[in-house]
Amino acid sequence: MQETYSHSSLYSFARQIFFKIGCNEKDAETAANSLLSADLRGVDSHGVARLSGYVRLWEAKRVNANPLIKIECETLSTAVVNGDAGLGLVVAPFAMQVAIDKAKHSGTGWVSVKNSNHFGIAGTHAMMALQHDMIGIAMTNGSALVAPTFSTERLLGTNPIAFAIPAGDEQPFVADFATTTAANGKLEMLRRKNESAPNGWVQTKTGAPSSDADELKKGGALLPLGGDKRHGSHKGYALGAVVDIFSAILSGANYGPWVPPFPAYVPMPEDMPGKGIGHFFGAMRIDAFRPAEEFKLHMDKWIRRFSTSKTIEGQDRVYIPGEPEIKIKEERMKNGIPLLRPVVEDLEKLGDKFGIVL
Amino acid sequence: MQETYSHSSLYSFARQIFFKIGCNEKDAETAANSLLSADLRGVDSHGVARLSGYVRLWEAKRVNANPLIKIECETLSTAVVNGDAGLGLVVAPFAMQVAIDKAKHSGTGWVSVKNSNHFGIAGTHAMMALQHDMIGIAMTNGSALVAPTFSTERLLGTNPIAFAIPAGDEQPFVADFATTTAANGKLEMLRRKNESAPNGWVQTKTGAPSSDADELKKGGALLPLGGDKRHGSHKGYALGAVVDIFSAILSGANYGPWVPPFPAYVPMPEDMPGKGIGHFFGAMRIDAFRPAEEFKLHMDKWIRRFSTSKTIEGQDRVYIPGEPEIKIKEERMKNGIPLLRPVVEDLEKLGDKFGIVL
Repeated sequence: MQETYSHSSLYSFARQIFFKIGCNEKDAETAANSLLSADLRGVDSHGVARLSGYVRLWEAKRVNANPLIKIECETLSTAVVNGDAGLGLVVAPFAMQVAIDKAKHSGTGWVSVKNSNHFGIAGTHAMMALQHDMIGIAMTNGSALVAPTFSTERLLGTNPIAFAIPAGDEQPFVADFATTTAANGKLEMLRRKNESAPNGWVQTKTGAPSSDADELKKGGALLPLGGDKRHGSHKGYALGAVVDIFSAILSGANYGPWVPPFPAYVPMPEDMPGKGIGHFFGAMRIDAFRPAEEFKLHMDKWIRRFSTSKTIEGQDRVYIPGEPEIKIKEERMKNGIPLLRPVVEDLEKLGDKFGIVL
Repeated sequence: MQETYSHSSLYSFARQIFFKIGCNEKDAETAANSLLSADLRGVDSHGVARLSGYVRLWEAKRVNANPLIKIECETLSTAVVNGDAGLGLVVAPFAMQVAIDKAKHSGTGWVSVKNSNHFGIAGTHAMMALQHDMIGIAMTNGSALVAPTFSTERLLGTNPIAFAIPAGDEQPFVADFATTTAANGKLEMLRRKNESAPNGWVQTKTGAPSSDADELKKGGALLPLGGDKRHGSHKGYALGAVVDIFSAILSGANYGPWVPPFPAYVPMPEDMPGKGIGHFFGAMRIDAFRPAEEFKLHMDKWIRRFSTSKTIEGQDRVYIPGEPEIKIKEERMKNGIPLLRPVVEDLEKLGDKFGIVL
């Protein structure tokens, strides 16, 4: 069962909630924007459905609504940003802007972030680079749900990575994906529908293959992209590990099994080696390599060649990364954002608490 | 059937061959080093087994043995390098050195390369950064063997990507992988043993699943990491696409289905939009983010936590990326490099042609 809300009403609601927990006006807008961008792109698990989760983190004093976000170390093309336990939804755009500013001056900018929290979807932050004719990169670690190849332990988050690449007449190329076979949100959808998971998504707590969409609750783990060794899971594991290292070991955040969990009721790991969770951002100015117009002509050619390639029977077309999300965004800006009944109820409860009408 | 040769004898042989085709002494050494690093790390498909292939490219005038490799465009942290149709085995170390020099000054260095050829294994070039306490990144595009998700056409190469990350007392983290479920070399091994391929490695020319290790010869295609959409192949496709774009569209090399093939007998694609094949290199100075010693302490902690994690029954241990290759290298430096009889015969023929004894 779904109800549909306009983007502007949900944005306004989220902005007011963030303001109520103590964010200043600008930060409340930034956070609401970051959050709603997920709903607009169809990543329902990371949008307003998570708003009450962020509030609970604030209630648990794990989120600082008035952070003093600052650069702790920098060179011509790099920086480490300390998020001061702020909302990742606010810390991430700050850090990405630092990367963009570095790129304006030095060709590229690379920023590793510590002491942050969940930043929403990676793609939104990477896409900040596009308007500057830059390539944007964003990644983050997350609390451990994923077992490396051959392990029974959860040691990595779903550690997503996003690349946003400008094109000319065509829409930009935007890849944004968890480094697991499937993101946790997809499992959640299967659980709700009482369906089983395809092989290669999860394993049991002893590391046996499983198709139980509820396996995580039983001590099991998500699997790295590839699923098992024979299908390349060591590559997905390596990629998730690189995200963890760039996000947290470069910056001084927590890594591996020590990354703080998103649900406020889950206790923090013991003996944490860093501060908060970590992100990593990059911006590369196209014309630090070749004239932007030339690059864009070739990107258009690339995109057209791929999107018009011959398809397997029964498939309409070959998609360019980011293309399905653009269509969803257009549709939802026009017709509104559908929310499941439990999400609506959750938001209404939140509204009651802070005296805001959804 | 295998025969074993010492590293020094194979290195000397390869060096002399490169010298005979016209490389200067330094380039011949560099090329032989790049090539042999693959044999030492156990990537047999990319070592001396390919030497005659490089020579055939030179005979076909597709490789320039005396290239004037130069920087065509640069900023504080970026450069485009024109390989002048040189051996990728020589062009790649040149470009990686440019990235390292940029990083010394600006914190990071990023170099996109056009007009190059096959560069051997990505890991070797990425690892050049390690001795400078830098993180190294290397990637390359290659001729089209891989069908994007939902496509029946081969539009991407196996487009490998490598990350080399320094540690302290522990061995460095070195991930080096094709962005496909399995590299072509693995299929080649199955073909030789007359074994079938696991599901998710290849598809037929109409895009049907296949376990025929010979499918590529029948017009089929390799599959992106993930195998099919349900198992995340759109992520492997996106990753291979990013490698293609960073390597070739940033630099002005050929991309997608227009990348020149490695076998000299395969005709060049028509209407090529760029020059040669493309690579991309990155170097990030650790202390542009935090003190290198601090970083290394945490890398050691990360590595120990992962490598001692609980394993699935029947598995000895959880491996750190690059760990198996270090063991193979130690073993092969001591006991020699095993070569299959057809490879030995190929090298002997090459030796006869140039008057060099294997």
